[in-house]
Amino acid sequence: MQNKLLVVKIGGKIIDDSQALSVFLKNFSRVKHPKILVHGGGNIATSLSKKLGVTTQMVEGRRVTSSEDLEVVTMVYAGLISKNITATLQMLGCNAMGLAGCDANTLVASKRPAKPIDFGWVGDLVSVNTDCIKSFLDQGLSPVFSAICHDQNGQLLNTNADTIAAEIAIAMTPFFRTELVYCFEKNGVLSNPKDEDSVIPILDSASYERYKADGTVHAGMIPKLSNCFHALRNQVASVVIGNSALVNDHTVTHTSIKL
Amino acid sequence: MQNKLLVVKIGGKIIDDSQALSVFLKNFSRVKHPKILVHGGGNIATSLSKKLGVTTQMVEGRRVTSSEDLEVVTMVYAGLISKNITATLQMLGCNAMGLAGCDANTLVASKRPAKPIDFGWVGDLVSVNTDCIKSFLDQGLSPVFSAICHDQNGQLLNTNADTIAAEIAIAMTPFFRTELVYCFEKNGVLSNPKDEDSVIPILDSASYERYKADGTVHAGMIPKLSNCFHALRNQVASVVIGNSALVNDHTVTHTSIKL
Repeated sequence: MQNKLLVVKIGGKIIDDSQALSVFLKNFSRVKHPKILVHGGGNIATSLSKKLGVTTQMVEGRRVTSSEDLEVVTMVYAGLISKNITATLQMLGCNAMGLAGCDANTLVASKRPAKPIDFGWVGDLVSVNTDCIKSFLDQGLSPVFSAICHDQNGQLLNTNADTIAAEIAIAMTPFFRTELVYCFEKNGVLSNPKDEDSVIPILDSASYERYKADGTVHAGMIPKLSNCFHALRNQVASVVIGNSALVNDHTVTHTSIKL
Repeated sequence: MQNKLLVVKIGGKIIDDSQALSVFLKNFSRVKHPKILVHGGGNIATSLSKKLGVTTQMVEGRRVTSSEDLEVVTMVYAGLISKNITATLQMLGCNAMGLAGCDANTLVASKRPAKPIDFGWVGDLVSVNTDCIKSFLDQGLSPVFSAICHDQNGQLLNTNADTIAAEIAIAMTPFFRTELVYCFEKNGVLSNPKDEDSVIPILDSASYERYKADGTVHAGMIPKLSNCFHALRNQVASVVIGNSALVNDHTVTHTSIKL
């Protein structure tokens, strides 16, 4: 039986809420086996951009990363959020290490082609440095990744944190029985967005297609779920979506993704 | 004979000048033996503070780090500067890893007492995690430290980069023959600040006292030089001050510090 590895992604709304973040970090720090955290950005970057007069361009509901935006997200995600999360985890006895993809060449991305839509300095993950990440885990370290990658040509790239979590989980499967957890502010995927109690306990490929067709699952949830199925199809042992408590208590209400 | 370790501190004016930084990073990347970089902050933090309307309080010519200032320096030093330097070094074939002191608990500081002067969130280094830094070096990694430390109680602290460089160099002496290089925009310590050619080739304790007494050495150079002598008194094999070229060419004009 292989050792377990937990890969957790926390969403922006947990990062924006200092109390929710503190609860999450306590739960995360209590996980005894090897673990990796991937964090999103939340509203701090948006509000910093506003203060600096950097206008955020949106195309088809998605943010375009200009040079100024890239500076802001690098400062906020890889600086402010990464180092505060890491310092808090250290206080809680978890030997965390905040990394961006350039650090130790851990996550390499390539700039998304400018056609059909130019998203600016946005990257798509192309490789995970598994040997290096494994050696950090073997040293008892818990890597904390922000979603800033590099292209090996000196360029930083803003990359999707959900995808990074899924790809790290997949990349580590030769060494570990890997569990992927997406934590956000809700208890799971809801069948009725207005009813917090309508958590779908098991979401499989067939029901996913049905929920997509009837609009139950839409917008940002679609790429997240497609990362979940991608992970399961690539040897990740389990994928669950839910609130912070799920990190070390799989009995709380949540959504389990199944093929 | 022990392996060599190079510990380099680069000053703010090199960071502010993209061409000078690029020359420095090329030189640094060419150093073949184990190496560590410590970087200061430069004017980027000050100009970001201005844009954000954060007023910098000064006491006795030294910056007080308010909560807002700490956020700014964490973003700029540990985010923007750290990740851009690291991405550039990766491009140049140097397996760099940008770290703040909270990362892997590498650098622990304690908040400077509020009396006689309250400098805010400023820390004094209390310990260097030598085993962890050695293991990174053994993996072929080049740690790149920003001067943001933590206190192990979840608090980040703004710490002096010159001191961090000296203390890391000292802490690594059980494992390496350690060389400490302070790189800045000049060719060395000048006997006449208006004459770039007046580099003092060898500065020993006796001449240092003389230069301090007659005012040749003053202001920011005094704490830097006192870090140099402290390092030499604590088993660091050599300490030199000069421009970027000094990193891999000890024949260029520079100041050698001797006891």
